[in-house]
Amino acid sequence: MRTITFLSDFGEDDWFVAAVKGEILKIDPNINIIDITHKIEPHDIKSAAFILKSVCGNFPPGTVHLVVVDPGVGSERKPIIIEAEKYSFVGPDNGVFSYIYDRLTKAYAIDVKAKISATFHGRDIFAPVAARVAIGKLPSDFGSEIHDLHRFEFPRVTKRANRLHGEILYIDHFGNLITNIPNTTDVKNLNISGKEVALKHFYGEGVEGQMICIKGSSGYYEIACYKGDAKRFLNVAIGEKIVASIT
Amino acid sequence: MRTITFLSDFGEDDWFVAAVKGEILKIDPNINIIDITHKIEPHDIKSAAFILKSVCGNFPPGTVHLVVVDPGVGSERKPIIIEAEKYSFVGPDNGVFSYIYDRLTKAYAIDVKAKISATFHGRDIFAPVAARVAIGKLPSDFGSEIHDLHRFEFPRVTKRANRLHGEILYIDHFGNLITNIPNTTDVKNLNISGKEVALKHFYGEGVEGQMICIKGSSGYYEIACYKGDAKRFLNVAIGEKIVASIT
Amino acid sequence: MRTITFLSDFGEDDWFVAAVKGEILKIDPNINIIDITHKIEPHDIKSAAFILKSVCGNFPPGTVHLVVVDPGVGSERKPIIIEAEKYSFVGPDNGVFSYIYDRLTKAYAIDVKAKISATFHGRDIFAPVAARVAIGKLPSDFGSEIHDLHRFEFPRVTKRANRLHGEILYIDHFGNLITNIPNTTDVKNLNISGKEVALKHFYGEGVEGQMICIKGSSGYYEIACYKGDAKRFLNVAIGEKIVASIT
Repeated sequence: MRTITFLSDFGEDDWFVAAVKGEILKIDPNINIIDITHKIEPHDIKSAAFILKSVCGNFPPGTVHLVVVDPGVGSERKPIIIEAEKYSFVGPDNGVFSYIYDRLTKAYAIDVKAKISATFHGRDIFAPVAARVAIGKLPSDFGSEIHDLHRFEFPRVTKRANRLHGEILYIDHFGNLITNIPNTTDVKNLNISGKEVALKHFYGEGVEGQMICIKGSSGYYEIACYKGDAKRFLNVAIGEKIVASIT
Repeated sequence: MRTITFLSDFGEDDWFVAAVKGEILKIDPNINIIDITHKIEPHDIKSAAFILKSVCGNFPPGTVHLVVVDPGVGSERKPIIIEAEKYSFVGPDNGVFSYIYDRLTKAYAIDVKAKISATFHGRDIFAPVAARVAIGKLPSDFGSEIHDLHRFEFPRVTKRANRLHGEILYIDHFGNLITNIPNTTDVKNLNISGKEVALKHFYGEGVEGQMICIKGSSGYYEIACYKGDAKRFLNVAIGEKIVASIT
Repeated sequence: MRTITFLSDFGEDDWFVAAVKGEILKIDPNINIIDITHKIEPHDIKSAAFILKSVCGNFPPGTVHLVVVDPGVGSERKPIIIEAEKYSFVGPDNGVFSYIYDRLTKAYAIDVKAKISATFHGRDIFAPVAARVAIGKLPSDFGSEIHDLHRFEFPRVTKRANRLHGEILYIDHFGNLITNIPNTTDVKNLNISGKEVALKHFYGEGVEGQMICIKGSSGYYEIACYKGDAKRFLNVAIGEKIVASIT
C-alpha cells in the first residue's frame, strides 16, 4: 500500500477532511491515508510548516505528503507538487513547504483545466493529484517546473558573546515549549521570561511542577514542566524570546 | 479494499469509535474505515443528515456509509440498511438518512436475533452489518423491505416578489455560514441580521474582516468573513433567516 | 492486513500521533492502524487502563494494542510487551496494563540498544516494536521475560448488609457515569450524591432530563440523563461514591 499523509486546518467537526479522503480513494481505494493533524489554527501557515518539517521524515520513502492550509484558495496562488529526495509534497505555494526545500527539490505548478469550486481545492485539486502521484504518476505530468516559490526563513539563532538569542517556535499539547536552538549546540542553561531553567536529560528527572529544559525529540531544546504545563506556568506564546548560555 | 465511512456523535474522548471499528475488522480486517466526523453535537440528527448528504458522493461507488447518531438506541426505532444507486447506508431509522432518499432507494429493516446491549447498537448491530454489506452480503439478507421511513424535509427556500427567503443550514469550523440557497440560483446580494453581504468569487477576494458571500463547495451559497469568523462576527445560529435579492 | 490499535495522551493538535504511525509504516506499510483515543488527560494512566480493558476485546485476535501514556519516559520504567491469549500489548510498565493481566499473560522487557531520544519512546521504541510484533516477531525476541510488573487494583465494590458500596470509574463524552458495579449483579436502585436513580432498560425509556441507571455496554451499571448530561447535572467526578440496594 502507498501512503498519503494529510495535514490541514480543516478541524474535525465538519466533513471536509473526509471529502478529501474520499476523492483520494476514488482514484485508488488501496491508498493508506494517515492524518498528521487537522487542528492547525485556521490559516497558520508557519505552524503547519514546522509540523511538516518535524514529522515528514518518520514516513516510508515514497510517501506523498498532502498539505492543505490554504487561506488564498481560489486566488492566484499556485497549486504545486514538490519532488524531494524521498517524498513528494502536494499543496498550495504559500510558504507551507518552506522548511523542506533543499538542493534536491524540484517543484511543479499544477495546471488546472477543469471547472472547479473556488473554495475547496483540497477536495477538487489536491486530493486527486496527491492520489495520482502516490500511484506513480510523475509530478512533471501535471504542469511545468517552477522556481520562484514562496518561502519564509526558519527563525534564526543569533550569537552575542557567550549567549545565544533564540525564540519559541512551537508549543505542543502538553504545554512544552519548543525553541529554535538545536540539540547539537552545547547549552549550559536557558533563560525565558527572566527565569532560569535547569538542563535535564528527560522529563521525569524534574520534580513535579519544576521548569526544566531538555533535548527535545524534534531536534531542538524544549522547555517543559514535569507533570505540569510550561506554557500556562510561564504564560508565553510562540515568538517569545529566550537566551541560552553556552560554554 | 472496500471502504466504510463512519459518522457519529460519539466524540473522540472515549473508546466508542474504536469499538465499532474493531467489530468491523473482526468481520474483515481488510476493510478501510474512514471517519467522517464524530463531533456531531450529541443527538443532532439534522446536522448529521446534512453532513452525510454533503460528503457521501465524494466516496467511490460501493462504499458503505455507517451513521450512528442514535438517541433512541434500545427503543423501538428500527435499525435499517438503505440501498441507493452507488452506496449503501447503515444506521437507525430516525431521519438521519432523510436527505439521501430518492427514487432508486430501497430500505430494509435489520432483523436482530441475538441478545445484545441496549445502549451500544453501533458496536453490536450496525458495525457487523455494515462490514457484511461491505464484503458483499445483500441488504435483503438482513430483513424485509420497509417503506414507511422516518424522514424530515430539507428546509425550503420561499420566493416573494424578487426576494428569496432562506435560512442558515450549517455552520462550519471556520465560522462560515452555509445557507439553503443553491449555487445554481442567480443572486444579487444577501441580507442577514439586517446586514447586506457582498457577493464574491472566492474567500481571498474580500479584505480582512469583511463579510462576503460566495458559492460554497457543498452546492449552496455561504457567508464568510475573510481571515475571520462569520458566526462570531454576526452572532448567529443554525436556523437564522436570510433574504437574497434575485435579478 | 494486521491491525495495531493506538491509545495515547498525545492529543491531536501536534504531529506526535502521526510520527508513531509513520514509524510503524516504515516497518510494514500494510499495517492497519486504528486509533483508540489520544485524548486521555496527560499522564492519566488509570483512565487509559480502563479504556484499554473496555475496548481491547472488540478487535480481531492477533491485534497488537499499543499504549503510550508514559509520564516516566526516559526514566528507569521498562518498556514491555505483554503476550495474552488473543492479543499482544506494547507500552511502558507503569500500570497501564493492570486490568488486562491474567493467568495466561507473559510479559517481556524490551531490551533497548540503540541511542534514542529521551522524550519520545512512542516513536523511537514502541512503534517499531509494535510493528515487528504485528508482523510475526516473537515478544521473546525483544528481551527477557519479567514477572514483577507494576500493577494497580481495579476499584472494589464492598457489600454491607443489603447495600453495595461502589464508585464512579469513568465519565464518558455524553456525561454518562460508569460505575464499578457489574451488570451481572441484581440491583434494585442506586444512590449518588444523595439522589436515588431509577433503573431502566435503555436510555430512551427515561423522560427528557430524568436521571436513570442502566446496564451499560462496558459491563457495568451506568448513570445517565436522557438527552442530558449526568455529569453536569450531578456535578460529580471520577471516584464519586455510589450506593446500590440489592434484593
